[in-house]
Amino acid sequence: MSVEVAKRYFELMDSADAGTEDVLELYGDDPVVHSSRAGVVRGIEDIRQFYEDNSEFFTGGEHHMTNFHQDGNVVVCEGYLDGETAVGREADGVPLCDVMEFNEDDEIVAFRAYLDYRGYVDEVPEEVPNVRAEAE
Amino acid sequence: MSVEVAKRYFELMDSADAGTEDVLELYGDDPVVHSSRAGVVRGIEDIRQFYEDNSEFFTGGEHHMTNFHQDGNVVVCEGYLDGETAVGREADGVPLCDVMEFNEDDEIVAFRAYLDYRGYVDEVPEEVPNVRAEAE
Repeated sequence: MSVEVAKRYFELMDSADAGTEDVLELYGDDPVVHSSRAGVVRGIEDIRQFYEDNSEFFTGGEHHMTNFHQDGNVVVCEGYLDGETAVGREADGVPLCDVMEFNEDDEIVAFRAYLDYRGYVDEVPEEVPNVRAEAE
Repeated sequence: MSVEVAKRYFELMDSADAGTEDVLELYGDDPVVHSSRAGVVRGIEDIRQFYEDNSEFFTGGEHHMTNFHQDGNVVVCEGYLDGETAVGREADGVPLCDVMEFNEDDEIVAFRAYLDYRGYVDEVPEEVPNVRAEAE
């Protein structure tokens, strides 16, 4: 069932009719998101902001998911992202991997996003989050 | 057993005494590497060059792997990279995910690397590889 929720996640992310609240409904209590862009984001309120920031950053785009691997309560989602960003950049076919951990109710309790943002930003950041340190 | 090979891979990548040939020994016949930096790299000769380019790009660094997920012949390796690069940049704790597909002899036949390079480059590239198109 968790794989079906994972597939639903990407459908929602790409749907013009769905919004942040629809995505957040897939999450369980006290979730945590790890992202190379935003660092460690804890709790549904901050995760809501994370998705709203994401929606402002990506002005257009589409996921092309290719593989879903399941190991216990973990689903690993591999694919590619076509994206356009608010800074005026566009990159297609960028490898993307999202790792989702589920609770017994098939709700996402941990989400770790792996994506190379080089094609989506217009300048390199002075520094990037030390996600390992933030996760400790 | 595949998870043990995956763990060995990162030991070799971080070892001062190991080189590209030691890493290549973990690969089977006709392997393919997918990377957001290098695109799709097919065959052991081009993969050798990929690792040599990687060694020139990363002048120092260490992996801190946290999770290994197995689904059939696939092992998903999550962790963080501390890295220093030839362009004079340094970033620690950057999320990294490597997906390895193994053959029946526990040799790697496909390797897909997910890493955000923003902290390691000194300028954004004009364009990034369309890895999805290259993979078709």
